[in-house]
Amino acid sequence: MKVGIIMGSKSDWPTMKLAAEMLDRFNVPYETKVVSAHRTPHLLSEYAESAKARGLKVIIAGAGGAAHLPGMTAAFTSLPVLGVPVQSRALSGVDSLYSIVQMPKGIAVGTLAIGEAGAANAGILAAQIIGIHDQAVMAEVEAFRKEQTDTVLANPNPAED
Amino acid sequence: MKVGIIMGSKSDWPTMKLAAEMLDRFNVPYETKVVSAHRTPHLLSEYAESAKARGLKVIIAGAGGAAHLPGMTAAFTSLPVLGVPVQSRALSGVDSLYSIVQMPKGIAVGTLAIGEAGAANAGILAAQIIGIHDQAVMAEVEAFRKEQTDTVLANPNPAED
Amino acid sequence: MKVGIIMGSKSDWPTMKLAAEMLDRFNVPYETKVVSAHRTPHLLSEYAESAKARGLKVIIAGAGGAAHLPGMTAAFTSLPVLGVPVQSRALSGVDSLYSIVQMPKGIAVGTLAIGEAGAANAGILAAQIIGIHDQAVMAEVEAFRKEQTDTVLANPNPAED
Amino acid sequence: MKVGIIMGSKSDWPTMKLAAEMLDRFNVPYETKVVSAHRTPHLLSEYAESAKARGLKVIIAGAGGAAHLPGMTAAFTSLPVLGVPVQSRALSGVDSLYSIVQMPKGIAVGTLAIGEAGAANAGILAAQIIGIHDQAVMAEVEAFRKEQTDTVLANPNPAED
Amino acid sequence: MKVGIIMGSKSDWPTMKLAAEMLDRFNVPYETKVVSAHRTPHLLSEYAESAKARGLKVIIAGAGGAAHLPGMTAAFTSLPVLGVPVQSRALSGVDSLYSIVQMPKGIAVGTLAIGEAGAANAGILAAQIIGIHDQAVMAEVEAFRKEQTDTVLANPNPAED
Amino acid sequence: MKVGIIMGSKSDWPTMKLAAEMLDRFNVPYETKVVSAHRTPHLLSEYAESAKARGLKVIIAGAGGAAHLPGMTAAFTSLPVLGVPVQSRALSGVDSLYSIVQMPKGIAVGTLAIGEAGAANAGILAAQIIGIHDQAVMAEVEAFRKEQTDTVLANPNPAED
Amino acid sequence: MKVGIIMGSKSDWPTMKLAAEMLDRFNVPYETKVVSAHRTPHLLSEYAESAKARGLKVIIAGAGGAAHLPGMTAAFTSLPVLGVPVQSRALSGVDSLYSIVQMPKGIAVGTLAIGEAGAANAGILAAQIIGIHDQAVMAEVEAFRKEQTDTVLANPNPAED
Amino acid sequence: MKVGIIMGSKSDWPTMKLAAEMLDRFNVPYETKVVSAHRTPHLLSEYAESAKARGLKVIIAGAGGAAHLPGMTAAFTSLPVLGVPVQSRALSGVDSLYSIVQMPKGIAVGTLAIGEAGAANAGILAAQIIGIHDQAVMAEVEAFRKEQTDTVLANPNPAED
Repeated sequence: MKVGIIMGSKSDWPTMKLAAEMLDRFNVPYETKVVSAHRTPHLLSEYAESAKARGLKVIIAGAGGAAHLPGMTAAFTSLPVLGVPVQSRALSGVDSLYSIVQMPKGIAVGTLAIGEAGAANAGILAAQIIGIHDQAVMAEVEAFRKEQTDTVLANPNPAED
Repeated sequence: MKVGIIMGSKSDWPTMKLAAEMLDRFNVPYETKVVSAHRTPHLLSEYAESAKARGLKVIIAGAGGAAHLPGMTAAFTSLPVLGVPVQSRALSGVDSLYSIVQMPKGIAVGTLAIGEAGAANAGILAAQIIGIHDQAVMAEVEAFRKEQTDTVLANPNPAED
Repeated sequence: MKVGIIMGSKSDWPTMKLAAEMLDRFNVPYETKVVSAHRTPHLLSEYAESAKARGLKVIIAGAGGAAHLPGMTAAFTSLPVLGVPVQSRALSGVDSLYSIVQMPKGIAVGTLAIGEAGAANAGILAAQIIGIHDQAVMAEVEAFRKEQTDTVLANPNPAED
Repeated sequence: MKVGIIMGSKSDWPTMKLAAEMLDRFNVPYETKVVSAHRTPHLLSEYAESAKARGLKVIIAGAGGAAHLPGMTAAFTSLPVLGVPVQSRALSGVDSLYSIVQMPKGIAVGTLAIGEAGAANAGILAAQIIGIHDQAVMAEVEAFRKEQTDTVLANPNPAED
Repeated sequence: MKVGIIMGSKSDWPTMKLAAEMLDRFNVPYETKVVSAHRTPHLLSEYAESAKARGLKVIIAGAGGAAHLPGMTAAFTSLPVLGVPVQSRALSGVDSLYSIVQMPKGIAVGTLAIGEAGAANAGILAAQIIGIHDQAVMAEVEAFRKEQTDTVLANPNPAED
Repeated sequence: MKVGIIMGSKSDWPTMKLAAEMLDRFNVPYETKVVSAHRTPHLLSEYAESAKARGLKVIIAGAGGAAHLPGMTAAFTSLPVLGVPVQSRALSGVDSLYSIVQMPKGIAVGTLAIGEAGAANAGILAAQIIGIHDQAVMAEVEAFRKEQTDTVLANPNPAED
Repeated sequence: MKVGIIMGSKSDWPTMKLAAEMLDRFNVPYETKVVSAHRTPHLLSEYAESAKARGLKVIIAGAGGAAHLPGMTAAFTSLPVLGVPVQSRALSGVDSLYSIVQMPKGIAVGTLAIGEAGAANAGILAAQIIGIHDQAVMAEVEAFRKEQTDTVLANPNPAED
Repeated sequence: MKVGIIMGSKSDWPTMKLAAEMLDRFNVPYETKVVSAHRTPHLLSEYAESAKARGLKVIIAGAGGAAHLPGMTAAFTSLPVLGVPVQSRALSGVDSLYSIVQMPKGIAVGTLAIGEAGAANAGILAAQIIGIHDQAVMAEVEAFRKEQTDTVLANPNPAED
């Protein structure tokens, strides 16, 4: 496993699975797990503290509302942590975004966009990070990038499907 | 000690000392400590998990930005936790407020106003909670309440000091 | 009755009943009542001023928009008051949240999250407050907390129901 | 006295005095008083309930933060109530504005702009309301309006004082 | 006609009709008209400048988005103008609210809540203003107020219809 | 072709086609193309850098979220660029608006409203710009403006269709 | 005169003069005038309705708060109107921005950034619009653009002045 | 050079130098350069497209307002890009944050907090990414982390310096 994808609740999976799908595409092995900062804080510390020894290179953490999971994961590991703000009901994910991105000096979380686009991009960014030292993964990322460019170029008429 | 007042950084003290001053006024014994969710997560879990056994009744936690301290404290204890959003530089404490108040179902933080008013009110609310079973403290709270009412009534002319 | 659950309108009940359900679970006796700060201000003052003598220990107040109920309840009683911002139509509850949480120094409302999660957590926090001096209630809260932890631990695969 | 100008705290006077200055200009008699919704709720109900019998025609209420004064005043009187959101420290008066303007159906507060402009305009609007049946006051308002128009017309060069 | 109810577009009618319904209830005669600040600016100036001579006492203006109608109406008349922010699509009426309430010093608009509650309250506030010198209208307002109080008192159980 | 209408994604077409429909109405020839700042940055620079030589007079660019297309188009051309913030999912287009309008000193984008109204108005503003030196186009714009005025004047009763 | 620069108040001049300075640089003749939508609405309609006949090609309008000047100017002329949101005291110009940019379908205002950058860019965009049919102006704009590019390229070390 | 630190303007350096200081601490070689997305778009594409071949592993990009630099850098390279929202004048960096973090699906920017904390954390996160395959750098990061933990633990009294 190169990447751990964790989330605060099963209800975050429809969003977070887009990270998994990206990693599938790039042939980056990953694991997925529900780890709640609030309901299972000990599991969180164990997961994050053991992550490096277990061989993980990057952790992607998604959560909504007072989204403490990414920041607390970063507090328990020196691995790079990417945070995905899950869209919340009342505040549309602004609460999730602020809770994840506004980390104090000293503990960093690389934050992506609110919702599905952010989850997919967390998968891409994790692959880019791994790709620094794994040419096969970087080649997959670049092929994906070229493909999405080509898709636009091949059919630039907005009124046609 | 009846109340623990913790905060993420020494820079939060000018705000959080207003909670201490209120408890002083009400003769409620308390302790103060810097406990950072991000820089000292193990201290946080130890502090929060031992709080009830050490005799604390209420914990007041203040933090700014991605303010995880109150919510994570609540995750590690069954004591009531009160959260104070400290005013942040860029976002004026809206980030602190959302990070503290928007807790998911299952773990509660009673959140006060942003900044000094919130810190003072956390001290008052902690005293009100203790006052349920401590008539002397409740009497102090009620005397304070009467005094602030009387202060308005005694000098209601807004243009006079 | 240990807890009073009041709300500004019957339309708040679908939100506020989550507080009641939590108290049911913890075997904390409570009463529910519509008390409108704007339409029945005298009922509000009578309710709040008599609450302590009637044996209530905590009041949970939910309201939406210019949500004055929690703050005015706190103005009329020295019991701890917990506020639940009900999700509003145009502003999604940000107006409710600000109207409840931004209390001036001197009168405190412990504010929970916007909407159903906040109502449920108000029930939990009320029980935690009562549990300080009621071991049976605290045991119920801790059992609930353990159960929600165990639920995550028992089934941590996000892709499985 | 035709107009009552009330405010939650003496600290609101530097803002609210602009309402008084406008009424002075229009020769509308008024009274000013600190009435706190939270610290002196009984004074508030007495003030508002007796206002009509005492001959007041309009009440101007200014407050900041969880600004309950205008809405609660409106709850206790059938006189028209105008609300002025005083600029708050952390949230710049957005909290004050939402707490005043977002009143539920059934109890109305005519809300002015945040801060000094709003206070001055509350004075103007109160005079306009009184001017419906008081030609001398309406003439004063119209003279003021003409004067401010003439001031612009007389010196339209933005780069000259 | 005592009150003019104007709005920027026919699409505002489902909101603004609540003002009309309130005035119907209080037996206050009114007229309704679409007057667009942007599409019919001359109609707006004619309407507002002739309003006082035509016997109107209060103008209620509703608009959404860059809602200039209430403020421009106020610029062309010395009658009191009440503004209703109509809920907009993208920004939920925050744009409408700011465009109406944040008037500069010198020209006042009494602003009500976003959407239907605000429109209804504009009708109530207009009646309160007229009621200062019309006891029959004031009696109607007070009867309405009493009725809504009695409705709450008669059936305070939130779980029953 | 006088106007280029570009957008970041085919999903922006339902919004952006309103710009095209306006230009159709004014007989202003235009072209439409999907050009993504992020997926096809080279296409963007080529499109924008060649636009003036190809005879375009104005470019309308629509995008959502971190909407870089209008600003980057403006960076690559000296033609006037109009930006349309497309309504985004989580943040309702506030992110799009800020990303387009808050350009630094030196590179300008004339920004329209969020969503369909903004797209239509981009078409109108492009025609107004072209109409400065094309009387036929200006006449079309003025005829459209007169027609929308007449439509209001012909049927000002808000309660009638 | 090719460009009219108008603003709601003399206090807007420190911001709006940046538009004038840009036009000076591009040798585009312009006029400046205080025209208040609220205090001088008739001057506004006269100014805007006569602008085209007086030879103006573009109008730049700056205002703060409930900034009605740009939109009302656009309502009275078929010339292109550019709007500059002046930074306001309480809401930092978000109110100005929303009031200017969120125009309804049918009347367009090309909106620039809040404050000085927006004013300067309004001058640049006006010159770009005029430059479509005035090669000398376009050459000036392009020279300015080249100069600011060269300034960056000549001294790209961020730590050196 | 392992890391490129770029920013849109020299005025961003007081913020962005905190990233450099962190990399100095961790002995990670880096380069700094002003690269403006809007004023030097060709420099941006050249810089980003050549970055990988020049041996860079991570790019840190800081910008304010309509902050296009991080996203456009990511569009031109497959290296991981970290974005720092620089605090802006009117909107306090909310505009910068949204412009950087809300990237569409397909191109990722790992976004840090607004202002100095975010810049410092970008340096830390870049070192963590490099540390995956560079034990010396990871050891430096972990030593820094331990030191900041020890600093809190050594002096936890908030009232003492």
